[in-house]
Amino acid sequence: MIDIRLEDVDFQKSGGLVPVVVQEATTHEVLMVAFANREAVEQTLRTGYAHYFSRSRARLWKKGETSGHVQRVRSILVDCDRDALLYIVEQTGVACHRGTRSCFTESLIKSASGEASRA
Amino acid sequence: MIDIRLEDVDFQKSGGLVPVVVQEATTHEVLMVAFANREAVEQTLRTGYAHYFSRSRARLWKKGETSGHVQRVRSILVDCDRDALLYIVEQTGVACHRGTRSCFTESLIKSASGEASRA
Repeated sequence: MIDIRLEDVDFQKSGGLVPVVVQEATTHEVLMVAFANREAVEQTLRTGYAHYFSRSRARLWKKGETSGHVQRVRSILVDCDRDALLYIVEQTGVACHRGTRSCFTESLIKSASGEASRA
Repeated sequence: MIDIRLEDVDFQKSGGLVPVVVQEATTHEVLMVAFANREAVEQTLRTGYAHYFSRSRARLWKKGETSGHVQRVRSILVDCDRDALLYIVEQTGVACHRGTRSCFTESLIKSASGEASRA
């Protein structure tokens, strides 16, 4: 595993943000996807707890800041293009605001015709 | 697991694209992150093989179209905001163009001072 530094991450490709995949360290379940700017990743590295950037609220947030469902970050992996991150976390409580462990609970299906429908 | 349809996916939030996390069905390894537009997801549903939208080349692409390292998609999960997808795949060969199974092979570390550095 090669070690790289924050200045090597490409935040410019998506206007200052990178997508972050969040995977539970023990169960390997993919919990959520969020976005982070440089400051959010810095806060994550500094505190050891997952921080993101909310696109809708246009602000930094710490996961679990109100719910208490924080994510202790064991490691942060960077992809080959250095424009996406993978947080390996220990999740306290549940990741999803709806009360489910993961945010991914719905299944995308073809429409009844057997073809993907066009709205 | 609730079934939803393509017209329920929010492609507008990120200008017609959604981030797609790709996880290996058997090993549960996170292989890569890519982006998809509606057409890429339609092609994935129709053919059973992972398709994405390349932001740099501005075109639809089938994973493995040149390398043969295709991804058979077992299921597509949608997150609670319906603006991110999770492809559960059977990976032929390796996911990364560098020859590694996963694109996530580098580890982000703090700089030597113990604080995240500012470039």
